[in-house]
Amino acid sequence: MNLALLFDEDFTGADRVVLRGRRLAHLHSVLKVKTGDLVPVGRVNGAMGTGEVIRLTDTEAELSVSLTQSPPPPLPLTLILAMPRPKMFRRVLQTCASLGVKDLWLINSYKVEKSFWQTPWLSEQNLLENLTLGLEQARDTRMPQVTIRKLFKPFVEDELPALLAGKKALVAHPGTAVPCPTHLTEPAALCIGPEGGFTPYEVGKLEDAGCQGVHLGQRILRVETAVPVLVSRLFDACG
Amino acid sequence: MNLALLFDEDFTGADRVVLRGRRLAHLHSVLKVKTGDLVPVGRVNGAMGTGEVIRLTDTEAELSVSLTQSPPPPLPLTLILAMPRPKMFRRVLQTCASLGVKDLWLINSYKVEKSFWQTPWLSEQNLLENLTLGLEQARDTRMPQVTIRKLFKPFVEDELPALLAGKKALVAHPGTAVPCPTHLTEPAALCIGPEGGFTPYEVGKLEDAGCQGVHLGQRILRVETAVPVLVSRLFDACG
Repeated sequence: MNLALLFDEDFTGADRVVLRGRRLAHLHSVLKVKTGDLVPVGRVNGAMGTGEVIRLTDTEAELSVSLTQSPPPPLPLTLILAMPRPKMFRRVLQTCASLGVKDLWLINSYKVEKSFWQTPWLSEQNLLENLTLGLEQARDTRMPQVTIRKLFKPFVEDELPALLAGKKALVAHPGTAVPCPTHLTEPAALCIGPEGGFTPYEVGKLEDAGCQGVHLGQRILRVETAVPVLVSRLFDACG
Repeated sequence: MNLALLFDEDFTGADRVVLRGRRLAHLHSVLKVKTGDLVPVGRVNGAMGTGEVIRLTDTEAELSVSLTQSPPPPLPLTLILAMPRPKMFRRVLQTCASLGVKDLWLINSYKVEKSFWQTPWLSEQNLLENLTLGLEQARDTRMPQVTIRKLFKPFVEDELPALLAGKKALVAHPGTAVPCPTHLTEPAALCIGPEGGFTPYEVGKLEDAGCQGVHLGQRILRVETAVPVLVSRLFDACG
């Protein structure tokens, strides 16, 4: 928890928050804070800064917060993932939030097992919790949006073309001829398939909608590895 | 298992192997192979190709193999990681193997908890198993080497300078002034610290040994995210 993410309900005054539960436990057991210590904080979808611990008990921490810093810039990326396997999905959510992905779409594919869509990790509460963990890791406050589309064909025919408008539209697929571009200076939309890849039919539909097939070299990567590799290739995080 | 990695003990003839255990289970339950099917295979530290299933029972699969393809090129990278938390370490091992890291050093740091070094994931057998999983994911056969150094000071003073010789030597550390270079055309050595980072003393010792401090932008990433981001930045996988 490199940053404690603060929500409206935590605020007891203009610059006072009270933390309980997970964040309190972390303050106690990992950061081992004492009254007077400063901890990094940020208001969800708002500014970041520090919180001074002014009162500390076993059940609550009251912080006086000063929020003057902008969060890091968001990635100009719409990321469209075939729904990953549940355990990996949870980590991918956190990774996306850490990297600065703000617009995440989860779509169906022939090779997405039906059971993946039943995972509790897709509940509003669990999505919020894992995105929060990712934001806290990276020190960011802008909450990503997650959109779920369980039917491939309606999504790709009716919604995707408009979603791709004005963006460099790509589908990462092994074996295509074009290497993934580097260091874009425009917004992008990137589709990544399931384990085993999109089917040829699905790649065709994504191309019809406007996506260009690109490859990442000879190595086949798991989605949780492919996402940071592709993001790092597409956008210069240091520039 | 995008490739079944074959070891000396699997070979019953010049081009015949018998698979049992994990790989057999995968052939049955995931790939659902039948006699006559072709599966991707590769000999450890050797060539890749296909295996034709010539005999299949509940306990064994006999394949006739043809190994004519070179594995993908290794990354010219020496990766030096402060020993990660055990669960993450297991995934990092697989990720390193998938990305093509062949030279991995695990070192101590002030913020590495002593208990991390006790993890069963550090046994020879478990290292081999997780590196194998990573190679099979990516379709590679060259087995990475893992070197363990539990004492920071002797390692950084006595071994590190020679290890860095002839390489672009970097330590990824938040807050340093220089952005991580991109698309190197020379071998590199990269040090990544523990959760919470290397201490200022440790960064100083790494710099004394020859490492240049570089940053990855404002976001603080977990090591399992930082490794693919850094590798993707340092080397062009598509070029």
